[in-house]
Amino acid sequence: MHQDQGLDQFRDRSVLVTGGLGFLGSNLAIRLVDLGARVTILDAMLDDHGGNLFNIRDVKDQVTVNFSDIRGESSLKFLIRGQDFIFHLAGQNDHVLSQTNPFIDIDINIKGTANLLEACRRHNPGVRLVYSGTRGEYGSAVMLPVNEEQPVRPKGIYELSSLTAQQLFQIYHDIQGVRSVTLRLTNIYGERAQMRHNRFGVANWFVRQALDGEVIRVYGDGSYLRDFVYVSDAVDAMLRCAVTEAAYGEVLNVGNNRAYSFRELAETITNAVPGSSWEFAPFSPERAAQEPGDFCSDVRKIRRIVGWTPRVGLEEGVRRTVDFYRKHREHYW
Amino acid sequence: MHQDQGLDQFRDRSVLVTGGLGFLGSNLAIRLVDLGARVTILDAMLDDHGGNLFNIRDVKDQVTVNFSDIRGESSLKFLIRGQDFIFHLAGQNDHVLSQTNPFIDIDINIKGTANLLEACRRHNPGVRLVYSGTRGEYGSAVMLPVNEEQPVRPKGIYELSSLTAQQLFQIYHDIQGVRSVTLRLTNIYGERAQMRHNRFGVANWFVRQALDGEVIRVYGDGSYLRDFVYVSDAVDAMLRCAVTEAAYGEVLNVGNNRAYSFRELAETITNAVPGSSWEFAPFSPERAAQEPGDFCSDVRKIRRIVGWTPRVGLEEGVRRTVDFYRKHREHYW
Repeated sequence: MHQDQGLDQFRDRSVLVTGGLGFLGSNLAIRLVDLGARVTILDAMLDDHGGNLFNIRDVKDQVTVNFSDIRGESSLKFLIRGQDFIFHLAGQNDHVLSQTNPFIDIDINIKGTANLLEACRRHNPGVRLVYSGTRGEYGSAVMLPVNEEQPVRPKGIYELSSLTAQQLFQIYHDIQGVRSVTLRLTNIYGERAQMRHNRFGVANWFVRQALDGEVIRVYGDGSYLRDFVYVSDAVDAMLRCAVTEAAYGEVLNVGNNRAYSFRELAETITNAVPGSSWEFAPFSPERAAQEPGDFCSDVRKIRRIVGWTPRVGLEEGVRRTVDFYRKHREHYW
Repeated sequence: MHQDQGLDQFRDRSVLVTGGLGFLGSNLAIRLVDLGARVTILDAMLDDHGGNLFNIRDVKDQVTVNFSDIRGESSLKFLIRGQDFIFHLAGQNDHVLSQTNPFIDIDINIKGTANLLEACRRHNPGVRLVYSGTRGEYGSAVMLPVNEEQPVRPKGIYELSSLTAQQLFQIYHDIQGVRSVTLRLTNIYGERAQMRHNRFGVANWFVRQALDGEVIRVYGDGSYLRDFVYVSDAVDAMLRCAVTEAAYGEVLNVGNNRAYSFRELAETITNAVPGSSWEFAPFSPERAAQEPGDFCSDVRKIRRIVGWTPRVGLEEGVRRTVDFYRKHREHYW
């Protein structure tokens, strides 16, 4: 299958990307510009999140950037009018913060999503929405790999707020006719993610430690499994879902059926960065209580319905990530 | 089993009932007074909800009534200090309203619950909480009867907000050590429910229509099944859960394994009110889209863990309900 097959539908279409200056959002916006879309980026530039103007440096004259918050009803109403597609990526996604203050997640992730959906229902009911949630909506895996029918029992407030947002999308789809595809993304890594703290994005954090000459810390015995998806694959999944009629109304995993242990992740990264190293470190009691155990996504549903499957392996993805941050360190550290 | 076995634990204990002037809350508060508890009632007296001072007329000198909102952080902090048990029944529970305005449910049911839980975590972490959610958290039944392991896919904003609140309780229980039992109540009916509109509480609304000499309207062919629980049984379930150590951290159905069709419900009520009658009426398109189909709770888990099972049959419960509203109509119509 040619890389862009089907994605020519984005040419000359109006697309809004919420959270579009962040990690996933900026990679998505750049790809959409390549595909010929008219891209508007909404970003609130939340502290300690991924918003970074450098992320869109290469396309800054081809996109419209709007600094605002999805909680702002009036501006949102204006921004969603006339859009053909909206990718909703804006959100508070700091698990650690959510455990000490649940109100930010409720406000941004739940109320902000309701605000977006209400605005669409009233002012642009024909728009098509793609929501990028998290595999954390499942909580601990009952069995591996985790398919979309498995029970949802999130282990933290951030994960719960993502689940509530996902269900808001489904209710608006089923009852109000505001069409959407909802996704549960696994661990995404790659270029344009924030690198200033380790509260989300473990693979990228390991890359930073390696590049800084610090010893990578692998918690416990490093045997917990995760599936990792390189950012260009995740972007591809979102775009393909948006143009697949049969995906609307569905919840779909965006993951990798090849899982790696944290130890393997650390080894892959240290192999890519000469002179770097890793070591075991003990779990804190808080981390242990919230560690959901092994996780690996069942991606048969998205392969069947959308035809998507990840293409970039961990070694290749890590290599590209390392190259990017070696070159642009000063914009992310 | 003697009716009050185990419930003598409430004697001289401090108990807060949020939403305590409403239907379930006032019946619970009255029973707690009978059991010798020191009862504080919190109620915001939301428009069109169940709050009614007449509900607690018989115990008004034995309870403390506090008019306030669970969204009020400062007053809540003060009210939860020193409580041994909190029954959280306050909420927006109008499904119809939630479909046109999702923000009230998010604000009261989700943010209000987070406010309560945060206040407990900070100021009374040893308290024991009981949350009364709705069987609507399940959405349509995948199979009957519906047990607690079945998928949750709520069909409306109110039901989703109840599910999010339930999961907030579970996260605070599992991660923060704030202990709770969460319940999913089926259709509860009986005395002290509001009777001014038909947006929730179908069994009580049928009773009103019968007493008013109106023809009861049964939608569709009246064959959809529901399980009904008389309010004194629901109160009993909440109290028994609160004093059962093994119930904490669990989600439990409060329902009835005997289901009735809406037609049988209408027949039971017209039998109890001489001269009343019922007829079929067509579903509106909105009602049809949101009708979750047959529902009947699997109550084996609560029977096994808590020893609770409903005692009052539909005929007896309807008879008592009719008697109550015949006598006190002017306070509810």
